Amino acid sequence: MTTTTYQVTGMTCGHCEGAITREVSQVAGVQRIDVSAATGRLAVTSAGELDDAAVLAAVEEAGYSGVRA
Amino acid sequence: MTTTTYQVTGMTCGHCEGAITREVSQVAGVQRIDVSAATGRLAVTSAGELDDAAVLAAVEEAGYSGVRA
Repeated sequence: MTTTTYQVTGMTCGHCEGAITREVSQVAGVQRIDVSAATGRLAVTSAGELDDAAVLAAVEEAGYSGVRA
Repeated sequence: MTTTTYQVTGMTCGHCEGAITREVSQVAGVQRIDVSAATGRLAVTSAGELDDAAVLAAVEEAGYSGVRA
């Protein structure tokens, strides 16, 4: 199990957290997502190595921008 | 056609506007909803007289609080 952390810009509320969670949960291998609008922190736990580009594309798909922390 | 205006507290983003819109659109007689997270203004257009209590209950159901403006 690996946890990879990203910093996301633009979340303001629980709906935003939900939108991120829905998109990122579709990335291959993702097993757990912890996301906080208050801090902008997105922690993604996966069985194997995570595809950063896929995670960041999912974040953008949800309407936000992110970088690997 | 009557437009009734409410002031809603707690919206921060477009998702919040969407949540309010979904709930308030279920109130009897509602024909149009204009809502802004930026100003907190909710304008509800209806054919006849609007049931304020039903609108404010819908706002609370969405997770916010409102008052007739």
